[in-house]
Amino acid sequence: MADRPVIETDVVVVGAGPAGLFQAFQLGLLGMSVVLVDALPEAGGQCTALYADKPIYDVPGIPVCTGRELTERLLQQAHPFLGAPLAPQPSADTTAPGRLWLNHLVASLDALPEGGFLLGTAHATTQATGPSLRARGVVLATGAGAFLPRGLGLAGLDGLANVHHHLSDAEQWAGQHVVVAGGGEEALSAVAHLLALPPALAPGRLTLMHRRAQWQAEPELLALVQEAITQGRVHLALGLPTAFAQEAEAPRLAHLNLLTPDSTTAELACDQLVIRLGLSPKLGPLQHWGLALERKQLPVDTAQFQTSLAHVHAIGDAVTYPGKLRLIVSGFHEATLAAHGLARHLIGGHPAQPLYTTTSAVLHDRLGLAAP
Amino acid sequence: MADRPVIETDVVVVGAGPAGLFQAFQLGLLGMSVVLVDALPEAGGQCTALYADKPIYDVPGIPVCTGRELTERLLQQAHPFLGAPLAPQPSADTTAPGRLWLNHLVASLDALPEGGFLLGTAHATTQATGPSLRARGVVLATGAGAFLPRGLGLAGLDGLANVHHHLSDAEQWAGQHVVVAGGGEEALSAVAHLLALPPALAPGRLTLMHRRAQWQAEPELLALVQEAITQGRVHLALGLPTAFAQEAEAPRLAHLNLLTPDSTTAELACDQLVIRLGLSPKLGPLQHWGLALERKQLPVDTAQFQTSLAHVHAIGDAVTYPGKLRLIVSGFHEATLAAHGLARHLIGGHPAQPLYTTTSAVLHDRLGLAAP
Repeated sequence: MADRPVIETDVVVVGAGPAGLFQAFQLGLLGMSVVLVDALPEAGGQCTALYADKPIYDVPGIPVCTGRELTERLLQQAHPFLGAPLAPQPSADTTAPGRLWLNHLVASLDALPEGGFLLGTAHATTQATGPSLRARGVVLATGAGAFLPRGLGLAGLDGLANVHHHLSDAEQWAGQHVVVAGGGEEALSAVAHLLALPPALAPGRLTLMHRRAQWQAEPELLALVQEAITQGRVHLALGLPTAFAQEAEAPRLAHLNLLTPDSTTAELACDQLVIRLGLSPKLGPLQHWGLALERKQLPVDTAQFQTSLAHVHAIGDAVTYPGKLRLIVSGFHEATLAAHGLARHLIGGHPAQPLYTTTSAVLHDRLGLAAP
Repeated sequence: MADRPVIETDVVVVGAGPAGLFQAFQLGLLGMSVVLVDALPEAGGQCTALYADKPIYDVPGIPVCTGRELTERLLQQAHPFLGAPLAPQPSADTTAPGRLWLNHLVASLDALPEGGFLLGTAHATTQATGPSLRARGVVLATGAGAFLPRGLGLAGLDGLANVHHHLSDAEQWAGQHVVVAGGGEEALSAVAHLLALPPALAPGRLTLMHRRAQWQAEPELLALVQEAITQGRVHLALGLPTAFAQEAEAPRLAHLNLLTPDSTTAELACDQLVIRLGLSPKLGPLQHWGLALERKQLPVDTAQFQTSLAHVHAIGDAVTYPGKLRLIVSGFHEATLAAHGLARHLIGGHPAQPLYTTTSAVLHDRLGLAAP
């Protein structure tokens, strides 16, 4: 830890769903610097992880938009303060110079004796230690928790060099034996993607591994994969993985041990393993930070949405207070009042009522607008 | 009053600014009928009255829009529940069949012995009694108050048939003597509008009346009016109106008595008087309804934004609570929680957490969306 970089910022926002994105905007508008951290490879939280292409009708002033469109609008609005590219960052980019850190978990939160907080980060899938952050305030916009790819339940497997949750490196696996694990939409669409690669880039052998011969997906996708199985282009490996063997080099996965449906055991060797079991929200390390919790939610006041720790605020689906509704519109209001609460603490002479973006030259300057 | 129609609705919303418009949407989404009443001739409140063409940058998910654009978006979103035309209704239309009543004040609010409320309405400029409303709940989204055209301070003047605040009937004044009262942008733009009428529709004589020979407007408009004064196309009447004489017929204004800057008196006869002194927010009748007030604001709780009267809620710039910021984003949240508070009271078995517009067939049906 000692020789890892520590990055300074006024406020760290944890969670880049709609509430966290608008939180970054409001903090920036009030003149505070911000780093926004999220475990997923792209911004949007549940909006992109669960309903990217489905319509939302109750965002005020937007009669209809998809989860992805709302995310793009919020990224564009927060752009003066996040300096983030509008396109998702590549998943391997762990030291992006921008202020939107994707693929990262906040692993630890410690109050410093001199005031402020030290936050440790880790890569969301490899668990590799990331840079640390020193901040004067924190806003938790963690929703139902970090949306992490479900694993196979085998400790140590996810850290191996040839075990993946994404297909971003698939074109480097030409001629190799690729195993896709899973029985749902995510697994079958990965198989379809690999089948569609041009012959020069395609795997030499492609195996679909699942605990039983039963798949759930849209009829069209299901038919495509079943035809490929019939044609022998996709092999099946049925069974529950119980252990694995690794090669010292890299280190890499050598083979999985399977308990098959007829209670025998089998070894499944592979060059690359792609685990596609969907995403699961995890409350994660947050529960160890000394914050009061009620039924896994963070109780906050309704004047500035502060948790039981001073200058640690919380907004969105993660919080509870009398009347709380888990709706995007409330996350926006909570972000606004949390930003003003932090501004009262961090900025001398913060006004009791807000400046208006329609008329304030100070706000226009922060938004990077040219003077008229 | 006895033979006036009484219109039934679940909820009356007072004030069609952004908070009131989104309130109508949220109430409709939860299955309640709504009538939305506003004193101005078009929806939007301050957004259209004060900054129709100016940019707003802090509405979540809308990086930039004008006050008018935001209003149009909110009208479109609330359309399934207001049944209102997207274009402003003509100002003379006092009995619109839709559920958006413009040009009307809520003049009285009385709790009924059997439960619910009786609300009396009046035309905002003529004060003529309008239809009454019977409702089970009320939401006050009255902002800084009703934005009413400022008068000349002469009791009884505004009710006369040839005294106006708008130019919607200007083409019927061809050949007549029209007096425009005021010294600002609103008065001078009215003069410019009348000067631009084709000769067949133009006034026979046009007079600009103000207490002194001093005007405030954009340079271009000022130059245009000053040139017309020089050319004798616009006459000046300088002085403070102190009294007026009326003709019994209609009844109509006959002439104004002016106290001139050199302290003499003068009579100014006219066929039509157009008073253009700008808009002024008035707390209005609301202060006589028995609601607790703190410095002219309504204290509300933050769980359902209810006032000191049960089932009378209040949202937006009219309210106060710990942490309150007068921002549009907060009005949207307050409207949402007020709607759920009223639903718990008015609808049996209202769920503790909301249905989602992305997935709920019930909500899709209410929004008038065809099943997929």
